[in-house]
Amino acid sequence: MNFEPRDSNFAEKVRESFARQPVMALIGAELMKVEAGEVDIGLQYREDLTQQQGFLHAGITTAIVDSACGYAAFSLMPVGTEVLTSEFKINLLSPAIGNYFLAEGRVLKAGKTLSVVRGDVFAIKADEKKLIAAMLATVVCVRKT
Amino acid sequence: MNFEPRDSNFAEKVRESFARQPVMALIGAELMKVEAGEVDIGLQYREDLTQQQGFLHAGITTAIVDSACGYAAFSLMPVGTEVLTSEFKINLLSPAIGNYFLAEGRVLKAGKTLSVVRGDVFAIKADEKKLIAAMLATVVCVRKT
Amino acid sequence: MNFEPRDSNFAEKVRESFARQPVMALIGAELMKVEAGEVDIGLQYREDLTQQQGFLHAGITTAIVDSACGYAAFSLMPVGTEVLTSEFKINLLSPAIGNYFLAEGRVLKAGKTLSVVRGDVFAIKADEKKLIAAMLATVVCVRKT
Amino acid sequence: MNFEPRDSNFAEKVRESFARQPVMALIGAELMKVEAGEVDIGLQYREDLTQQQGFLHAGITTAIVDSACGYAAFSLMPVGTEVLTSEFKINLLSPAIGNYFLAEGRVLKAGKTLSVVRGDVFAIKADEKKLIAAMLATVVCVRKT
Repeated sequence: MNFEPRDSNFAEKVRESFARQPVMALIGAELMKVEAGEVDIGLQYREDLTQQQGFLHAGITTAIVDSACGYAAFSLMPVGTEVLTSEFKINLLSPAIGNYFLAEGRVLKAGKTLSVVRGDVFAIKADEKKLIAAMLATVVCVRKT
Repeated sequence: MNFEPRDSNFAEKVRESFARQPVMALIGAELMKVEAGEVDIGLQYREDLTQQQGFLHAGITTAIVDSACGYAAFSLMPVGTEVLTSEFKINLLSPAIGNYFLAEGRVLKAGKTLSVVRGDVFAIKADEKKLIAAMLATVVCVRKT
Repeated sequence: MNFEPRDSNFAEKVRESFARQPVMALIGAELMKVEAGEVDIGLQYREDLTQQQGFLHAGITTAIVDSACGYAAFSLMPVGTEVLTSEFKINLLSPAIGNYFLAEGRVLKAGKTLSVVRGDVFAIKADEKKLIAAMLATVVCVRKT
Repeated sequence: MNFEPRDSNFAEKVRESFARQPVMALIGAELMKVEAGEVDIGLQYREDLTQQQGFLHAGITTAIVDSACGYAAFSLMPVGTEVLTSEFKINLLSPAIGNYFLAEGRVLKAGKTLSVVRGDVFAIKADEKKLIAAMLATVVCVRKT
């Protein structure tokens, strides 16, 4: 899909907002790609982010792909607006085992109020890139007050 | 709904597994209630768990209610099994503003392989308890190897 | 939950809209209850509504509970608006076997633009009422043009 | 994605099962494509399948894409098994307006018990093909008894 950004400053806007998300710093997530309708977020494996079997906790997998989806939608929103996640669904396809995790958010539809975004999470180890989670999210554009 | 636990040791089993989730310690989540088919997890507000507007990040809200749902299902599973989240959907009803957050997982169906669990998250401040998120999750019972 | 309807004519409005849904007539669905934030839709079992094992097809189960959720939200919307389903998720808990099916839509949050609704479907045979599906839906309020 | 079918007779198996779904005949759905992990189902617009605004009812859109997803997963299942939908989520991106609708099911992961499938629905009129709905589904493989 090809989208025309409504805010030419979209990449800077996304980077700035991301930098103001304390939880992304807490878990060590980093912004890897910002294009119109496409945002990738990466995360290094850390033991303190795991569940009882040593895999990345589903909440952490979700946090990075939710942010990737939200910012992918935000990249297409006009000046003077904010982004909020309305809802999402995630399928955890395989245990989150890897050295590095990459969450890719891709806008399917950019509406005036509602956007629909697809998210994929890949686990990366050595030279293998494996799809471990798939998300479908609804994101809301709200006027800044 | 009333469920008969298949493992009389279920409460201890849940507490033990929860204690082995490093990410729960990282964010400061605590187990508040463990009954057959019902698990509550509480979380104190902390600035480092927020997104760009100062609300609890959706990934953190999700982490506690996903764990509450998973452990609610786990409480009904037989000896010698482990629990994995297959998928979930969450609706974020209102911004996660509050001093304390409570995630309640309640089993709707406890199947041999698949369980379906409903989760609610409440934001608590002063004497108000407000529903801020609703989850519907599918949890898998896997034989321990 | 207790909701104050913003349109005193809400029950008539829902009944009128339901009567204009040809697909509800095709499958034989009927409106059983209309209250503020609560709508029930019933359906008689019919062989032509089944899938390959003789159970009610998931698409039909979905059609009645999606309508129940949409109309539950519509009952709380102001004059001059229409209702559209944005998205939903449904868990099919047990095979849809029964003589009669009842879908119950209950509003969790009635927002200005977005409403979140919980839906349950029960299969009824003799004097048993069994939960067979659970839905979580997002419904949009749009100004009539 | 490339999948190796575990039942060489998979296409016939899918066609046979589809032919035994009375509801597909009721709404006029037809099987358009059956490959390993990929199934398409088409549907002609009919007024008796609509909701109150004259669009295809969300339950019908759902019925065809749920079947496409289920059969895409079924095409990869071994001999002696049956397929059941566990759950799905669907985003309705745009009103279902068109002469013809095409639902495409594509397997993301083919597990022994659980498969995860992505579904897209397109509305087709003249020479336009527009994405109107996106699904993410979990499908279960059950031993035939």
